[in-house]
Amino acid sequence: MQTIAIVGLGLIGGSLGLDFSRLGYRVLGVARRPETVAMALKRGVIHQGSTDLSLVAEADGVFLCTPIDRVIEIAQQVVPHLKAEAILTDVSSVKGALVPGLTALWPHFIGGHPMAGKAEAGLAVAEAHLFRGRPYVLTPTADTVPQDLDAMAGLVDQLEARRYCCSPQEHDQAVAWISHLPVMVSSSLIQACQQEPKPELRQLAQALASSGFYDTSRVGGGVPELGTLMARYNREALLSSIALYQRQLGQIRALVEVEDWDGLHHFLAQTQAARPAYVDDAL
Amino acid sequence: MQTIAIVGLGLIGGSLGLDFSRLGYRVLGVARRPETVAMALKRGVIHQGSTDLSLVAEADGVFLCTPIDRVIEIAQQVVPHLKAEAILTDVSSVKGALVPGLTALWPHFIGGHPMAGKAEAGLAVAEAHLFRGRPYVLTPTADTVPQDLDAMAGLVDQLEARRYCCSPQEHDQAVAWISHLPVMVSSSLIQACQQEPKPELRQLAQALASSGFYDTSRVGGGVPELGTLMARYNREALLSSIALYQRQLGQIRALVEVEDWDGLHHFLAQTQAARPAYVDDAL
Repeated sequence: MQTIAIVGLGLIGGSLGLDFSRLGYRVLGVARRPETVAMALKRGVIHQGSTDLSLVAEADGVFLCTPIDRVIEIAQQVVPHLKAEAILTDVSSVKGALVPGLTALWPHFIGGHPMAGKAEAGLAVAEAHLFRGRPYVLTPTADTVPQDLDAMAGLVDQLEARRYCCSPQEHDQAVAWISHLPVMVSSSLIQACQQEPKPELRQLAQALASSGFYDTSRVGGGVPELGTLMARYNREALLSSIALYQRQLGQIRALVEVEDWDGLHHFLAQTQAARPAYVDDAL
Repeated sequence: MQTIAIVGLGLIGGSLGLDFSRLGYRVLGVARRPETVAMALKRGVIHQGSTDLSLVAEADGVFLCTPIDRVIEIAQQVVPHLKAEAILTDVSSVKGALVPGLTALWPHFIGGHPMAGKAEAGLAVAEAHLFRGRPYVLTPTADTVPQDLDAMAGLVDQLEARRYCCSPQEHDQAVAWISHLPVMVSSSLIQACQQEPKPELRQLAQALASSGFYDTSRVGGGVPELGTLMARYNREALLSSIALYQRQLGQIRALVEVEDWDGLHHFLAQTQAARPAYVDDAL
């Protein structure tokens, strides 16, 4: 693989461009707005850019880095231009809703999800080494060509990402647990506090809120577009996660209602013990 | 006020001692273990210490800094030694369950809650200026002597804390929203993920968990003793907060179930807009 095309030059697309340029690939970039292409050229994110998708015709590998709800549509426009053996991949945070359609469009498609985010979005905050040490999930299917998977795995390893391989469905359930469910849980916390009927008490709560509330409410205060897309494209896994979540919170409520303090202590001790497996406290 | 006694020399008691010593008060300290008294003397937290509560006889103001479930019992032992006009206060994170009993024990009692925490507990991590810029809630009642409230307010102001005044019930509802509810919400998130039936999927979720999960699960991974005491001593406010929270999450679930994406976007946009009133993003 010598030439890589990136369609969509935001945080993820731009950061991939910086890395692949640095790694010696020739990088082509396509964006909707000419100013984005100009900025990407100026920042050294890409070697050649265009607002026209036909630019991908030269590429051995093409990364679709557009928002989830535009991936299929863009793929349809990209496919007619692709080289016969070119590998096509995406970077979407949901896979089950996209992978079958994309695989049907192109036999050399492999789904991918680099899990590196920042508070801000856009090319302006793109950076080299964004994916180093971060998870990068590949979601091959029964139809995946083994050599394509090897090639994609090689690219991911060059990014120094932590590479995982699983089915689209497994990916979606895992990210529902650790990414999509937390958004809904956190958003509900803010909305619940807003239901406090006495305005002066709500103001007091706002004045007293500290690091615990700050952290627990953070992802619930994120951009609504992202949360909505997550839910829309990962609806079933999210719904089953919410259902299991509701059962756990219901259990806490029942323990508090019947004043089973040993039971509550046991519950909280279990979650204290379980958390380190999910989080690296050096984070 | 010239002499202040602190009963219980942990993080809060120790930090109060460091501040009051620095501010020129004579500080007396009582702890259960002689080693704690010795360490407090050595670190300059107190001027004089003892394991015997009779030491408080010399104090004009007494801070009860023991765990919530020992405050009443310790107060009963302290009261016989108090000077006639001495002000008694506590630092507990719940007020409604304690203030009436403590007021009955001593006419010069005023409830207090300095809201400064650290990840670690104990005298070893006590520090000067811990309360600076942090909320310090006073909870006077109809029985409170106005001069006592003035004196307490003066002490809180010398700590450079942000002083708030409200009823014990108002305090409890406010902290239920921003402190106790988040613990239960966060703990339920960890416990829900643990319910994933496939071990390999749970491992994948653990591997992919990142800053969003880290923050949302943080207070749910705390010490179970604290969460249990919060629930036990603030049961009613916590239960009503959980009920309102469940309704909000139920609403999200319903929106996702019926695929009302505009409705979900509206919900998430509301919480994005509401959060800044609770958190200072410079935190």
